[in-house]
Amino acid sequence: MVLDQGYVHGGDIYSRPIRLDFSANVNPFGAPEAVKAAVRSAAEDLGAYPDPCCGSLREKLAAANGVYKNDVICGNGAAEVIYQFAAALKPKRALLPVPSFADYESALLGLGCEPTFFPLQREKGFLLSEDILDAIGPSTDLLMLCSPNNPTGRSVDKGLLLKILDRCRAAGTWLFLDECFYELTDEGKALSLANCLQEGDRVFLLRAFTKAYGLAGLRLGYGLCKDRKMLETMSRLSQPWNVSSPAQAAGLAALDCPDWPRRARELFETEKRFLTEGLTALGFAVLPGDANFLFFSGAAGLYEKLRERGVLIRNCANYRGLRPGDYRIAVRTRVENEELLRAIEEVKGV
Amino acid sequence: MVLDQGYVHGGDIYSRPIRLDFSANVNPFGAPEAVKAAVRSAAEDLGAYPDPCCGSLREKLAAANGVYKNDVICGNGAAEVIYQFAAALKPKRALLPVPSFADYESALLGLGCEPTFFPLQREKGFLLSEDILDAIGPSTDLLMLCSPNNPTGRSVDKGLLLKILDRCRAAGTWLFLDECFYELTDEGKALSLANCLQEGDRVFLLRAFTKAYGLAGLRLGYGLCKDRKMLETMSRLSQPWNVSSPAQAAGLAALDCPDWPRRARELFETEKRFLTEGLTALGFAVLPGDANFLFFSGAAGLYEKLRERGVLIRNCANYRGLRPGDYRIAVRTRVENEELLRAIEEVKGV
Repeated sequence: MVLDQGYVHGGDIYSRPIRLDFSANVNPFGAPEAVKAAVRSAAEDLGAYPDPCCGSLREKLAAANGVYKNDVICGNGAAEVIYQFAAALKPKRALLPVPSFADYESALLGLGCEPTFFPLQREKGFLLSEDILDAIGPSTDLLMLCSPNNPTGRSVDKGLLLKILDRCRAAGTWLFLDECFYELTDEGKALSLANCLQEGDRVFLLRAFTKAYGLAGLRLGYGLCKDRKMLETMSRLSQPWNVSSPAQAAGLAALDCPDWPRRARELFETEKRFLTEGLTALGFAVLPGDANFLFFSGAAGLYEKLRERGVLIRNCANYRGLRPGDYRIAVRTRVENEELLRAIEEVKGV
Repeated sequence: MVLDQGYVHGGDIYSRPIRLDFSANVNPFGAPEAVKAAVRSAAEDLGAYPDPCCGSLREKLAAANGVYKNDVICGNGAAEVIYQFAAALKPKRALLPVPSFADYESALLGLGCEPTFFPLQREKGFLLSEDILDAIGPSTDLLMLCSPNNPTGRSVDKGLLLKILDRCRAAGTWLFLDECFYELTDEGKALSLANCLQEGDRVFLLRAFTKAYGLAGLRLGYGLCKDRKMLETMSRLSQPWNVSSPAQAAGLAALDCPDWPRRARELFETEKRFLTEGLTALGFAVLPGDANFLFFSGAAGLYEKLRERGVLIRNCANYRGLRPGDYRIAVRTRVENEELLRAIEEVKGV
C-alpha cells in the first residue's frame, strides 16, 4: 500500500478523472468471460479461507510450464513476489539494468540494499548488450532482468540470455528474470527460460496473470524456481493466505483459455504499426517494442497536457536513466488508439 | 503461501472432503448481499490496477473509527498486516502471551526474533492477569495481544488493557493489539482501544473484515496506528497494490452495513449457550467465550474422528501452551450446531 500521493506508477485512475487509460500495460480485451464467471462464482462463497497451498493452481501452472508443483510459488500479484524474493534473499550486491521496473529497486531499498545500476544505452535503443556479462562476478549476489523490459519494450536476445544464465551459474549469482510480458510477445515461450531450468539453479522466473489476462485489479502472479530453499524462505516470510479465493479461481479458469493472449497479440501486431506510424508522423521517436506497449520520446509536457484532457499515459521521467519527454503507452484497440493520436495531435501545439 | 502440508491453521477444507467446517471463525451468515454484489460488480472490470492508496476505503474506515485517514493502513487480510508490522519493527525482544494466534510467532521467527512467551494459566481460564504488567519493561520492544483471544475466546478486561497501555507508554514498548474479533463480542466498541489512541502512541490495532463480514476468502484487513513512521515503513516494505479492487469494493460496501455483525451476535448469544450446554452434557469442559467461537477440552482424538466423518473442528494441540484434547469450534447456525453435537456424540464412544 502507498500512504499518500508518493505514487510513481502508471494506472493512477483514482486521484483524478480519467477517460482513457494508456498508462497500464494490460490486455485491452480485459479478462476472458470464463475468468470473470469464475470470479463471480467465487464471490458467492467468500466465507472460507483460501487454500494456503494454492494446490490446484500450482499443479496446473506446473503442468503448463513443464516444471514440478514444488517449483511454483503463487503471490498476490507479481509485485508481491518481487518483494518476497528480495526479502528472502537479502542480497548485499544486486545488479540492476536501468531503465526498468521501479519496484526491483524499491524492494531492495526497503531492505537496506543499495543496488548497482547497469545503464542501458539510449543510443543503442536501450537493448541489453553483452557488456552485462563482464558486470556479473562472484561478488554479484543478484541480477534482476525484465524481458521484454518495462518500460522500453525491448526483449533480451535469447542467445544473450543463455550466456547470462551460464555466467550467473559460474559466479553463483541469482538471476531474477521478470517474464511478466512474455505471453504478449511474438516470440512467446521461445523467449522464456522456463525450459532451461536445472535442479538447484539459482534462477527465479516471475510471471503474472495481470497483463495477459487483464487481471491487474484481482492480483495474481507466480514464480518458477528450482531452488527449494528460496521458495521455503519466501513462504516463511509471508502470511499463509496471500492469494485470495477469487484470484485462485481466476487463475485456474485463465489456464483453460491459453489462446486468450494470442488474440491480443494479433491486435498488437497491427496496432503497434499503426501507433508507431502515427507517433512518428507527429514527430516522436518510437522504439520498436516486443510487448503490448510502446516507448517513445519527444518534448516534455505531453503527459500533463493529456492528463488535463482525461487521457493518461505513463510519464517515464521518474524512471532511473530516463528523462522528461520519455513516455510509455499501452497498445489498445483501434478506436482508442485513434483517440489517443488525436488527443496528442491536439495538445502538441498547445 | 504455504508450500505443502505444513499447514497448522483451521479452515483446511482443501486437503480432504469436508461437509461441515467448524474450524474457521467466520460469520455463519457469510457476507451481506450488498458486499457480494460489490465483488461481482468489481469482477466485471479487473483490468485496472487497484487504488494503491486505498483512498476511499481508508477515508471511510477513518470516519468509522474516529481517526484520521493517515492513521489507517490496509492489507491483504489482517494476516498480511501482522507480517508487515513485524518486518517493519524487527523487534529484538517481543512478549507474547500464549496460547494465542500462531502467526504472531511465525511472523517474528521469520525475522530471526525469538519471542518470550507469557503463559496464560489454564486454571485461571486462560484469562490475562495483572501479572503481565510486571513482564513489560524498557527492554520489551513489543507486546502482542489478542482480545478476544484466539483460540480461547477470552477478552482482556478493559481496565487491565488501559493499565497495559500506560505501562507500554512508560516503557516505550510497542503494543500490538489484535481486535479482529471485537465486532463479534457483546462489549463491541467498548472493548477496543481505538478511542484511547494519542498522537505518536506506539500502539497498533489490528482489524479484519474476514470474521465479521465473512470475507476470509477475499482478504481484507487493516490497522489503526498513530505512529506515522511505522506506517511509512510498513508501506515501504510492501508492494503498492496489495489490496485488490474487489476487496476494496467489498470493504466500502461492508462499511455501509454496520449492523451485519450485530445480527450474528444475536445468534451467538443463543447458540453459545446451546453449544456450551450440549458439550458440557457430553463431558467436555467449555470456556466462556466472548467472541464467535468456543474453546473446550476433553479426551484427545476427537478431531481425527470427526474429520473422518467430514466434520472439521480446530485441533488446538499444536498451539503453544495447549495440549491434545483442546479444541476450538466456530459458533454457527442451530441446524449446524445440532449436527456437530450429534457427530460428537456419535464418535465419543468409538
